[in-house]
Amino acid sequence: MAEAEGKAYTMNGGSGLYSYSKNSDFQREAIDAEREHINKAIAVELDIDIISSSNTFRIADLGCAAGPNTFLAVQNIIDAVEIKYQNQGKSSQCPEFHIFFNDHAANDFNPLFVSLPPKRRYFAAGVPGSFQDRLFPRAFLHFVHSSYSVQILSRVPKEVENKRSPAWNKGRIHYSNSTDEVVKAYTAQYAKDMENFLKHRAEEIVHGGLMAFIIPGRPDGRPHSEVFANKSCELLGSCLMDMANKGKISSEKVDSLNFPLYFASPQEVETAVRQNGCFSIEMMEIVPQEKPQLKAFTSSMRSGSENTIKKHFGEEILD
Amino acid sequence: MAEAEGKAYTMNGGSGLYSYSKNSDFQREAIDAEREHINKAIAVELDIDIISSSNTFRIADLGCAAGPNTFLAVQNIIDAVEIKYQNQGKSSQCPEFHIFFNDHAANDFNPLFVSLPPKRRYFAAGVPGSFQDRLFPRAFLHFVHSSYSVQILSRVPKEVENKRSPAWNKGRIHYSNSTDEVVKAYTAQYAKDMENFLKHRAEEIVHGGLMAFIIPGRPDGRPHSEVFANKSCELLGSCLMDMANKGKISSEKVDSLNFPLYFASPQEVETAVRQNGCFSIEMMEIVPQEKPQLKAFTSSMRSGSENTIKKHFGEEILD
Repeated sequence: MAEAEGKAYTMNGGSGLYSYSKNSDFQREAIDAEREHINKAIAVELDIDIISSSNTFRIADLGCAAGPNTFLAVQNIIDAVEIKYQNQGKSSQCPEFHIFFNDHAANDFNPLFVSLPPKRRYFAAGVPGSFQDRLFPRAFLHFVHSSYSVQILSRVPKEVENKRSPAWNKGRIHYSNSTDEVVKAYTAQYAKDMENFLKHRAEEIVHGGLMAFIIPGRPDGRPHSEVFANKSCELLGSCLMDMANKGKISSEKVDSLNFPLYFASPQEVETAVRQNGCFSIEMMEIVPQEKPQLKAFTSSMRSGSENTIKKHFGEEILD
Repeated sequence: MAEAEGKAYTMNGGSGLYSYSKNSDFQREAIDAEREHINKAIAVELDIDIISSSNTFRIADLGCAAGPNTFLAVQNIIDAVEIKYQNQGKSSQCPEFHIFFNDHAANDFNPLFVSLPPKRRYFAAGVPGSFQDRLFPRAFLHFVHSSYSVQILSRVPKEVENKRSPAWNKGRIHYSNSTDEVVKAYTAQYAKDMENFLKHRAEEIVHGGLMAFIIPGRPDGRPHSEVFANKSCELLGSCLMDMANKGKISSEKVDSLNFPLYFASPQEVETAVRQNGCFSIEMMEIVPQEKPQLKAFTSSMRSGSENTIKKHFGEEILD
């Protein structure tokens, strides 16, 4: 039940200028957009009989970072369940809510805990660990939510880091403009991670439970190189190569850095779910997201990638 | 479900010289001594049928600080449950273990999470909040453990802080050498806190579940002023008064500082349990603890009281 924490890709903690908590508006908009889908899914798909044995509704948000979007996401789910009980005239039987905020053990949980909504109507717990491992006992959860998290791979594919492999990603920090071998290695890692993720969730979720994801991805058929988030990674990569060419950082260090991120298509997600065999997809929607303001986006990106860059090159490179 | 965190009495976090994690050997010895009682209680008192519905055994350690003693305490409980299943020839039916590490939201949870035993055989969660509030859903826990925590009061009694009350604790930071009014106010606060604590636990624990406490206290009949831990607080108080007399700190600040600690007798604990009415005491033992080495004890005391002193007088007073 442990994880290799040294390599964990974590968001910036705390509440400073480049903290994730101050630079995640972009992700919050997606949670707002998701709300009506959550309402509909709970209204139509949720069988409240699955709750009756414990009279507790257990929700996990996987990849919660240090807040605050996670609070909004779980509140949306709670509201939808409460509305369902009201609409069935069963308000007095509404369950207690038990919420599990999960992220890597290296995540900054302290600010998450002190900023829990003071008037919350739920019991809260933090769950440290990778969602590539089992995190909960069998048949424990009723609803699993995850936003902007499953695009983070458990690791950079081995062969991409191996100088002697045809998939070695020399001179780049990302896969999207690289050789077919590199893209294939990333695609295979994503499939493997999703297989693992779904296998563990299938054990943890009660029969009849629900999952909802916000996955930054790409439309079917669009090449990886044309995805906005990938372009941003490539831009950061070429800045680093420029710095290496000017002798400011070592080019070997750039060669050995790769972001463990992969932007999947709906088809890839469908394939993973079908191969797992324990879940069915009840609704899926592609939400085109407007390109964010440049300054907001670079801060958001920094809040997500700064830890990785810092570990790799040292603190002095950051500004 | 919220708490007034500003006043929370928390142990020093991190892993520095005066961190609680480096200065809690004294408390660890008590957990070692408790082990055989846990074994016996689980062997004799625990009805394993209470676990069968979920096949998960849920343990909470209330007041876990930043570790590491909490890991030892919960492992002792898990070992005892596993032995019970073995002895009944039911090893294959042994439940999964789900462990909840609780302390105030202001506790330093980050080092606790990264130092979780890598080969643990349980699922771990952190639960931020005061155990004077509800922390878990109804009938959720099978075993509640708490070590060196219930002597911490939810607050300094109001009247002790009130200049116009006969219970005002002028010139002292602790109750044990104070007037009867001060001692009475502390005794009443302890009774109220225990009432509250037991009321909430009675809701959270399944029927047939167990609780185990390590409570630093005093033998029945021994005056508060003769308890070692109280003497230490009084000593710290007279040092502060000396500093005030020399003009180094304000004497008003000393007057307004009071430690929210109370060392109860077995009789007081029994009274609280009887008045609550939901639990019965199956075993209770007074373990005389050897006086610790002075240096180890002062470091241990500092790891527990430094946060309070710092908040009250400012950082410069500490060394």
